[in-house]
Amino acid sequence: MGLDLWGDVAELTAAIVDIESVSGHEQALAEAVEEALRPLPHLTVERDGDTVIARTALGRAERVVIAGHLDTVPVNDNLPSRVEGDRLYGCGTTDMKSGVAVMLKLAATVPEPTRDVTYLFYECEEVEAVRNGLLRLAEARPELLHGDFAVLMEPTHAVIEGGCQGTLRVEVTAPGERAHSARAWMGSNAIHKAGEILDVLRAYEPRKPVVDGLEYHEGLNAVFVRGGVAGNVIPDECVVTVNHRFAPDKSLAEAESYLRGLFAGFEVTVVDASDAARPGLTHPAAEAFVAAVGGTPRAKLGWTDVARFSALGVPAVNYGPGDPPLAHTKDEYVEIPRIHECEERLRAWLTE
Amino acid sequence: MGLDLWGDVAELTAAIVDIESVSGHEQALAEAVEEALRPLPHLTVERDGDTVIARTALGRAERVVIAGHLDTVPVNDNLPSRVEGDRLYGCGTTDMKSGVAVMLKLAATVPEPTRDVTYLFYECEEVEAVRNGLLRLAEARPELLHGDFAVLMEPTHAVIEGGCQGTLRVEVTAPGERAHSARAWMGSNAIHKAGEILDVLRAYEPRKPVVDGLEYHEGLNAVFVRGGVAGNVIPDECVVTVNHRFAPDKSLAEAESYLRGLFAGFEVTVVDASDAARPGLTHPAAEAFVAAVGGTPRAKLGWTDVARFSALGVPAVNYGPGDPPLAHTKDEYVEIPRIHECEERLRAWLTE
Repeated sequence: MGLDLWGDVAELTAAIVDIESVSGHEQALAEAVEEALRPLPHLTVERDGDTVIARTALGRAERVVIAGHLDTVPVNDNLPSRVEGDRLYGCGTTDMKSGVAVMLKLAATVPEPTRDVTYLFYECEEVEAVRNGLLRLAEARPELLHGDFAVLMEPTHAVIEGGCQGTLRVEVTAPGERAHSARAWMGSNAIHKAGEILDVLRAYEPRKPVVDGLEYHEGLNAVFVRGGVAGNVIPDECVVTVNHRFAPDKSLAEAESYLRGLFAGFEVTVVDASDAARPGLTHPAAEAFVAAVGGTPRAKLGWTDVARFSALGVPAVNYGPGDPPLAHTKDEYVEIPRIHECEERLRAWLTE
Repeated sequence: MGLDLWGDVAELTAAIVDIESVSGHEQALAEAVEEALRPLPHLTVERDGDTVIARTALGRAERVVIAGHLDTVPVNDNLPSRVEGDRLYGCGTTDMKSGVAVMLKLAATVPEPTRDVTYLFYECEEVEAVRNGLLRLAEARPELLHGDFAVLMEPTHAVIEGGCQGTLRVEVTAPGERAHSARAWMGSNAIHKAGEILDVLRAYEPRKPVVDGLEYHEGLNAVFVRGGVAGNVIPDECVVTVNHRFAPDKSLAEAESYLRGLFAGFEVTVVDASDAARPGLTHPAAEAFVAAVGGTPRAKLGWTDVARFSALGVPAVNYGPGDPPLAHTKDEYVEIPRIHECEERLRAWLTE
């Protein structure tokens, strides 16, 4: 049974939430999206890995890109979806299948938009950048990302969010020396040594700089830790993976240098890095979108693929029905009225 | 090519060191031991899993047990073995294949010992107690462990070591709450919380009690740590596995209660526990062995299967050629003269 793109957008959201699509396992959902879009005569549909690209080609003066990722973080005992009052609960409801549902409904029900539209449904946004479907397209077929303006339907609670914070993930390694755990003093315990790394993280106070009028909020967190050889061996290595979120007044190089300073004396290896993007709301195309949709823009704290469009010279904003603080939580939900609101505002913008 | 039990015991040690036998992978070595012993007419040989039992049945007034484990901790780029001067280097040389080699040579070359002998070559001593081959025998066929006295050929640098420290392994769990790592303040970081567990370990000062005249040395160490959900998620759980080594003036229950007190406020789960054994050198059978072998006994710091014999009422000591501080280190070696010394002393004791 395929997806119904003509019914209620909240029901469509529930349907795609219930197609589990943890990063790396988007195939079933990509299949469903492709199958639903391919019969539509006004769209050219392409499949690239588990990324689906659907475009109108009406010869309009402007082309806009509307993009959303198909993947979610690991399920946390929060599937299948369920409705409670005005809320739709479940893994991916906020981040960001409600946005994907709006895209799908618009793709089907606005056959003659006033601007040509490229809809991008892509894979692996929630994991290391090297697997990101949009990055792959940006490198292999950058023409697919080109446009006068781009909207990413990441969760913003139906408010336009400008720019995005950068993200840098490093492995900080504490060294040690193995010994039998009955004679620990003959060796040196790397896990105990890693306590110094955690001391730095526990003492961290976040910076909250204002950039182009919007306030950001940085972060520094351990996201993984691993160490240990055997149950009776003093471990000789402990690795803490640290994720730094940094505001767009810092370059990637500055962020890296900051981390290397914080963890001086430890081996620091960069495992994932994505630049921040300045708000960019002063660009004319961005101003037109802001005028059409309304509201007061605010800063985007999470990293989003806005930065990839920004790097290609395409002004881009985040705008979607999900609620950012709920993303990646066990109790993730989306407010159903926000899904309808986003659908209406974008429909107005594409048909004005 | 089988093992040569009649040649030099140091060469025999090298041969069995070169048969890799990390815990759970003892099969090839158990095969070789069984094949070498089975043709000897004065021994009854049995195989139980990867444990080999060889016994004389000469109707002597006393029966002694000589035991050693076949397994090693994980290889650490320290195989194959190599000789440098008086030292034989390699994984398992000290702990405890030099002792196993002495056992094998004695089993072959002392066909008519003055005491009946049970030789026990067993598996999985270096991992959690539940997999230990000697524990399995002690539960399923305790008669195989019975005797008037037992010698465990664990590394003691050719000095008799009495008793052994107990070992308790617990998982201490730090809780947290997931959130997107770009908005860490919406969640609670379990890895940062685990910093409090490491604080306790880093502040620990070991107790060194004297028991029955021998000085012990306790220990408290993290041996594993794990935590993390995804690279952009604030982790909701971090587990530190802690190994406590305790002197024989403490019961297992007291040791557990001590750990639960240290980590009050955290979930503590026992994953492995083995009682300590008091020195027991005042037992007449132990005194006879001490007189025959000579030297001044000292405390055994590591846990050894002495405790299993002790629990069955069989007095037991540790005595072997390996050097305890070198066990489980990358640069593990055994002094070749100590292997010859142990062989000679035990041969004298079995033929006096």
